[in-house]
Amino acid sequence: MSDKQPLSDHKVPQTEGKVCWQSPSNIAMIKYWGKRPVQIPINPSLSFVLDKSIVEITMVYTISPGDRFSLTSFTLNGAKNDAFSSRIEKFLGSLFSFFPFLEYTHIGIDSKSTFPHSAGIASSAAAFSALALCLCDIEAGLEGKEPSGDAFFRKASYIARLGSGSASRSVYNGMVVWGNTPLVADSSDDYAVRLADEQVHPLFSDICDSILIADSRTKKVSSSEGHALMHRHPFKEERIRQVSENMKSILAALKSGDFDHFGEIVENEALTLHGLMMSSRPGYILIHPNTILMLDKIRQFREETGTPAYFTLDAGPNIHLIYPHSFKAKVQDFMDDELARFCENGHRIDDSAGMGPVKMD
Amino acid sequence: MSDKQPLSDHKVPQTEGKVCWQSPSNIAMIKYWGKRPVQIPINPSLSFVLDKSIVEITMVYTISPGDRFSLTSFTLNGAKNDAFSSRIEKFLGSLFSFFPFLEYTHIGIDSKSTFPHSAGIASSAAAFSALALCLCDIEAGLEGKEPSGDAFFRKASYIARLGSGSASRSVYNGMVVWGNTPLVADSSDDYAVRLADEQVHPLFSDICDSILIADSRTKKVSSSEGHALMHRHPFKEERIRQVSENMKSILAALKSGDFDHFGEIVENEALTLHGLMMSSRPGYILIHPNTILMLDKIRQFREETGTPAYFTLDAGPNIHLIYPHSFKAKVQDFMDDELARFCENGHRIDDSAGMGPVKMD
Repeated sequence: MSDKQPLSDHKVPQTEGKVCWQSPSNIAMIKYWGKRPVQIPINPSLSFVLDKSIVEITMVYTISPGDRFSLTSFTLNGAKNDAFSSRIEKFLGSLFSFFPFLEYTHIGIDSKSTFPHSAGIASSAAAFSALALCLCDIEAGLEGKEPSGDAFFRKASYIARLGSGSASRSVYNGMVVWGNTPLVADSSDDYAVRLADEQVHPLFSDICDSILIADSRTKKVSSSEGHALMHRHPFKEERIRQVSENMKSILAALKSGDFDHFGEIVENEALTLHGLMMSSRPGYILIHPNTILMLDKIRQFREETGTPAYFTLDAGPNIHLIYPHSFKAKVQDFMDDELARFCENGHRIDDSAGMGPVKMD
Repeated sequence: MSDKQPLSDHKVPQTEGKVCWQSPSNIAMIKYWGKRPVQIPINPSLSFVLDKSIVEITMVYTISPGDRFSLTSFTLNGAKNDAFSSRIEKFLGSLFSFFPFLEYTHIGIDSKSTFPHSAGIASSAAAFSALALCLCDIEAGLEGKEPSGDAFFRKASYIARLGSGSASRSVYNGMVVWGNTPLVADSSDDYAVRLADEQVHPLFSDICDSILIADSRTKKVSSSEGHALMHRHPFKEERIRQVSENMKSILAALKSGDFDHFGEIVENEALTLHGLMMSSRPGYILIHPNTILMLDKIRQFREETGTPAYFTLDAGPNIHLIYPHSFKAKVQDFMDDELARFCENGHRIDDSAGMGPVKMD
């Protein structure tokens, strides 16, 4: 993963092939907000991958020594997409030091998102992790290795991070930490790691996440712009300290199976994320009127029924309602009765912790 | 103002009388949020008093040496109010060291609020400053002094602060600072001071404040509870530093007459206040869905027309739209056309910088 390694010998025969990976989105419980170059987070974050929110990337490649890298085609859900295409071309073109063969490879990409059309959910974590897995898969093939094992996924996480920070967390199932913290062995700013099974109570293995779509439109302020505003944020240093405390607490709750303590931290992180946006300069509000109405209903439902359902928010207006699988029926009834009317076209995605990326035949 | 001074000689003749003061509410541009005992702010704040949002207190008193203090009656807008009555009785009962005569005085209070019924605007600043002015007036009378002059208003500000922190800022017209800061000569945590006329550009002398009522209901989390949550707030120290920067900037803008720079800081303070609430533990949201819709409209109006209209928020959902008097017609047309539909029953109060408290005959 160093950029010091020499390029491979160009005198290899022309090789063609195809790889295909599905990789999921993830939802952060401890939020990544603010970074240093190159995609180094100012604080550690913790998330789990989703089951249904997937991007599948099919990558055809022709390794042709003497040629120059090119992205020969790019489609998203069957259609050309110039904006994504140029972002991905630039990304691939930046990776020659990590994948020396890329410098003389022609790549064609077909991508499919299983995310509902215009759900307003960021697919970049799924997309960049799938891209990274495809590249690592091609490399493994060239080296006669299996596309699996710790080193394989670690490199995939590292490469995914360079495309989109949170994508680093999409290559593992279970609870995943990205960002160096003394609280998690082997944690790193460069790639994500998966918490060992004995660190996570079984209660969390089938945790549910229902995504309530308050507003699917493009955000007024992008996450990239938001991260940039953290650079000189007045509360930056104390935010970093707060994360240390929250990480410590959530790791304890994950281990002991204390869902309410877990949920309390999750909500604190969500509201803090949006509080940091509001206290940026300029400050801005990404929550939607219906977000507020739903958050009130969720807290009221929890207080009245004792149901352990807690919300989180990404850097946008949509709510992720997090609850143990055993409360699924009760929470879904509540959402049908009390929240559906605040969702855009009643739109909700009932997702849950997923199994992580899958190599497709 | 020390609590060390001995009580006055009790051997004074019985004295009766009546005093009456009107005192205004104020709106903070730099926010007071977080305090130490006793009503000492963790940071300096800056505000101006309003013209129409007034509480008038008529205080009848019988100084009766040998008796014990009592609050003989209390009315608010002609009706008894037990909740307010007991708060005020407790407040008056805590002031014997500042007003020795109080210990053997019977007090009757009639209060009138000119605030529209149920506007959801806090009247405590106006009420406690009016109470303080009445007490200082009685004291001045006993001492054969005029109820005026620097020392008179300074003590009134000090006493008002003990009732409600922001009430300390209601006893002066112009721009008023409460809280010690090296940026303002004579500033103090104990009482507010008025910025000298030469420190404030004439542009601000008739500044307008239109209060847009998004929701008049009682807040979910009171300001007292909010202040308490600042005690252990993760961003407390950096918030204090941020205020120093904002105070420095706004003082420069006030002096030079740079309304846009002034407004930028005002909005930063408003959104930061609510960001701090959200990142409290537990975090909470006091803005109303319609608050968000109106803030969006206000920024859009400003961007499209260049009109210098900036919002601030108290610790609640209602918006104060701040603009120079010269833009009054244009801003009021905008509010009629674009904001009225988001106000509760279309409710708005067009107020402006006021002249400060007035002694009534």
